[in-house]
Amino acid sequence: MTERPDLAALQQRLVAFAAARRWEPYHTPKNLAVALSVEASELLEIFQWLTPEQAAAVMDDAESAHRVRDEVADVLAYLLQFCEVLGVDLLAALAAKIDRNEERFPRPGPADHSSG
Amino acid sequence: MTERPDLAALQQRLVAFAAARRWEPYHTPKNLAVALSVEASELLEIFQWLTPEQAAAVMDDAESAHRVRDEVADVLAYLLQFCEVLGVDLLAALAAKIDRNEERFPRPGPADHSSG
Amino acid sequence: MTERPDLAALQQRLVAFAAARRWEPYHTPKNLAVALSVEASELLEIFQWLTPEQAAAVMDDAESAHRVRDEVADVLAYLLQFCEVLGVDLLAALAAKIDRNEERFPRPGPADHSSG
Amino acid sequence: MTERPDLAALQQRLVAFAAARRWEPYHTPKNLAVALSVEASELLEIFQWLTPEQAAAVMDDAESAHRVRDEVADVLAYLLQFCEVLGVDLLAALAAKIDRNEERFPRPGPADHSSG
Repeated sequence: MTERPDLAALQQRLVAFAAARRWEPYHTPKNLAVALSVEASELLEIFQWLTPEQAAAVMDDAESAHRVRDEVADVLAYLLQFCEVLGVDLLAALAAKIDRNEERFPRPGPADHSSG
Repeated sequence: MTERPDLAALQQRLVAFAAARRWEPYHTPKNLAVALSVEASELLEIFQWLTPEQAAAVMDDAESAHRVRDEVADVLAYLLQFCEVLGVDLLAALAAKIDRNEERFPRPGPADHSSG
Repeated sequence: MTERPDLAALQQRLVAFAAARRWEPYHTPKNLAVALSVEASELLEIFQWLTPEQAAAVMDDAESAHRVRDEVADVLAYLLQFCEVLGVDLLAALAAKIDRNEERFPRPGPADHSSG
Repeated sequence: MTERPDLAALQQRLVAFAAARRWEPYHTPKNLAVALSVEASELLEIFQWLTPEQAAAVMDDAESAHRVRDEVADVLAYLLQFCEVLGVDLLAALAAKIDRNEERFPRPGPADHSSG
């Protein structure tokens, strides 16, 4: 038994949530891509005028910490719903992308100090 | 034993990948929020001139399907790295958000045909 | 004598406005590019769940019309301030881009019914 | 007589350009708001991994300067086309917004060193 929420279980909760409220007609791939982009911008908005020091301390303030958690949740929610309507396996897509990036950006050896 | 990629394992691969390439100085919270927003827009760009019918068929074409999988992977990659640097538990944040939404948008009863 | 606001005059009002409030340290090129992107997303947010018919009628409702005018103003304000801090001539940039596009997408002849 | 490009004249060139290529069916308010947001992100992408110093020097390099001018042109092009299809007077909207902001953020007096 586990109490940790599981990504697949959360995706199914989101699907059931939208279905119970009859939101499926709005949840087209294009609208969900728009919503994902809008939520990613709302997360970015929190940081827009912050210095690097203020940005690094954003979780120290209860209100801004709540806002950050709220926005990352919204981004993931729309990403999962987008993947659901198009039948995309999100975790497999990320695993494949990391594989490709490991070929594209080979790991530098211990004496290689060049930066990316 | 499981062969399915696990979200926590993918997050650790991303952390190790960036560390091996010494990219951590670039991976500030603000830069990662910018990168997340840029990737969400690249996903949206695929759909910008498509009709609803074309958008719904986007996975039928091998090239555009690859592009979609590539962009959702990038969005999740930056979202996980953002959460890592700020110590945010992404799955817990989404579970809490769904809980709040269930209170905010009560489920309509069987005879309730009002739309959201 | 004209009463129409002029783009260059508006740009100078924005510069003076920020200077009087000592906001210049925040108005770095990167921060202004972030702010421009955030405002463009706020404009998009108005349309995210609208059908094409609802979107076309958005100016018929006084409140949403005000919101649209407010967001396009914000987008232009940050675009002008971005161009100001980097010394970019915005109108010359657009004129040059239209020139390039006229070469890149030649105008179809009267019998050419192919679509773009 | 002036050789400076004029905003209204550029807007008319964009309208004629799209009409000649029969792109009007694609240029719905929602699609243009998406395109504007995508272009603003492409401008932001140039800056995503730059330090403040690198960002301030972006116009010193011919290639990145060209890219910046190209993206600000695209942002303005879609903003003008969006305003055209919805009948929004962009310059009047910005003038009205600056008026409102002057009331909302009163100018500090000479001895007032509080920051915004």
